[in-house]
Amino acid sequence: MGVTTPGTEIPARVEVIRDALAVAGHELVEAVGHDDAALSSVHDPRLVMHLRDVHSEWLAAGFAEDPGQDRVVPYFFPTAAMLGPLPSQRAAAVHARAGQFCYDTMTLVGPGTYAAARAAVDCALTAVDLIGDGATVAYALCRPPGHHVTREGYGGSCYLNNAALAAQRLRDHGAAKVAVIDLDAHHGNGTAAIFYERDDVLYGSVHVDPGAGWFPHVVGFADETGSGEGAGTTRNEPLSPGSDDAVWCEAVARLVASVTAFSAEAVVVSLGVDAAADDPESPLLVSADGYRSAGRMLGQLELPSVVVQEGGYHLPSLGGLVCAYLDGHASEAIHE
Amino acid sequence: MGVTTPGTEIPARVEVIRDALAVAGHELVEAVGHDDAALSSVHDPRLVMHLRDVHSEWLAAGFAEDPGQDRVVPYFFPTAAMLGPLPSQRAAAVHARAGQFCYDTMTLVGPGTYAAARAAVDCALTAVDLIGDGATVAYALCRPPGHHVTREGYGGSCYLNNAALAAQRLRDHGAAKVAVIDLDAHHGNGTAAIFYERDDVLYGSVHVDPGAGWFPHVVGFADETGSGEGAGTTRNEPLSPGSDDAVWCEAVARLVASVTAFSAEAVVVSLGVDAAADDPESPLLVSADGYRSAGRMLGQLELPSVVVQEGGYHLPSLGGLVCAYLDGHASEAIHE
Repeated sequence: MGVTTPGTEIPARVEVIRDALAVAGHELVEAVGHDDAALSSVHDPRLVMHLRDVHSEWLAAGFAEDPGQDRVVPYFFPTAAMLGPLPSQRAAAVHARAGQFCYDTMTLVGPGTYAAARAAVDCALTAVDLIGDGATVAYALCRPPGHHVTREGYGGSCYLNNAALAAQRLRDHGAAKVAVIDLDAHHGNGTAAIFYERDDVLYGSVHVDPGAGWFPHVVGFADETGSGEGAGTTRNEPLSPGSDDAVWCEAVARLVASVTAFSAEAVVVSLGVDAAADDPESPLLVSADGYRSAGRMLGQLELPSVVVQEGGYHLPSLGGLVCAYLDGHASEAIHE
Repeated sequence: MGVTTPGTEIPARVEVIRDALAVAGHELVEAVGHDDAALSSVHDPRLVMHLRDVHSEWLAAGFAEDPGQDRVVPYFFPTAAMLGPLPSQRAAAVHARAGQFCYDTMTLVGPGTYAAARAAVDCALTAVDLIGDGATVAYALCRPPGHHVTREGYGGSCYLNNAALAAQRLRDHGAAKVAVIDLDAHHGNGTAAIFYERDDVLYGSVHVDPGAGWFPHVVGFADETGSGEGAGTTRNEPLSPGSDDAVWCEAVARLVASVTAFSAEAVVVSLGVDAAADDPESPLLVSADGYRSAGRMLGQLELPSVVVQEGGYHLPSLGGLVCAYLDGHASEAIHE
């Protein structure tokens, strides 16, 4: 039910970024396949099975025969308001089960969705491996993005959480503490939720204020600081619509300071470049210089860094924004 | 996002039932307006405000200018899978707030929705008043239906819970214990949730098994029996698709026995007639004789009874099914 609008999270995004990286002289490395076992370090196995199987089940149930229904669209969502005090079971019907994992109506599953999301994970994990092999900065050109995916919920054009999986792999490879710094224009509620109660992974994010009506709407506020063992390990920097380089870079500086205070041994950067002024999906007004400055600040940490692509939807400027960030970061990174 | 399908919960439903009641010689009484204060006995005031205001806010936000968006369609739903351990705030944007109250994409809000839902409540409360005036059975021709609405969540083509509000009013008017018996083909998850932890209202329902893939999908199972002070005051009778009069009437008989055991002093019947064989919205195969038999069983309780219309979507048989139930019920009811 509703109106179909053109998506902005499209394959051309990857192409323009890859071309810009090549022109800038970056070494390009193919992603290496990684075992599915890595996924369960961050995600509920039921989410992975759902994403893998739901489109074929959707076809088998005959829904694809309706016009506009070739991709899985959830219609029923067991929210807290719906359940109240009732216990809930897993839905038997594929059209209802979708809404137990997917929390919006814009993150559809088509025939190639799982393969693409799974390949993006391989891309992020390959970047971690490059760090293990001695690189100081490795950038993962992931698509679809991932930072809106929680342990078992997907949405916001994301299916598997590439950045969270990279952070967990850095932990598994020996970094005692890892920081995830999220520069995407939208709060990375998935990564935040995954690490909210953990004291070994810091999550810091600068993003447009959800209180001003922006996705993910109900979380991403400054008073969310972690809970339980993770108390104090979440830091949100919500910014007003219209915030520019100066305000944004100050917030990035505060996040970078929190990484130092946390004594992180490695960093994952969720590099959304949709905070840029030209971007259609956010009202922030950051420039390429702003992204370059953020890169310098994170590079000055002199920590092994995996940079994971998140959002960014303005095709003409996407490549330049990513290159500006990496230029800033690499100029300050350790050179062995 | 998705495909628009014709609704079955349409105004003609009320017209065919009213005409059948008139032909059968039932006395027709106009609903009387009741104060909004009654709503807060069952619903969160925020739900009521949302329903009252959301369409004008939707217009003011400009969404109605998109084709197919003249009614409020939620797109974002803060499920448990989405939130994980994160606290959540109320969404600022109207298009996001909708999904904090509405839990599916088929229960839209147009310009007349709130007025219709509010009028249905008046209808149910008027039936309670008739009982207070000495009637033994009063039938409320409510539309839209209501039994899928929880304290603050609406869905399943329902906006305000007419039956729950009637039950609460019977309590307020002095009945120490009230039973709600739900004959609609779908589990009345809203009424169940509202009374799940209360020991003064029994909720009993016979419906098509949600485990067979039917709405409301995640609740309505036999092992939901109430909790806290309400332990033992919920009784679900999920039936296999294809169940006929014999199986259905046995389940109704068990529900009626539970009303006696509960020592209820008044009864609300959520009379959905979509369990009928012809109905497009359920796979149960109940006949008009089955509904007449259910009416007799409930009438034999000899308790003041408010019968509230819920679902039922096969226009040619709707009126006959409702009359059959009322015929059975009234034939056994106390005659003063």
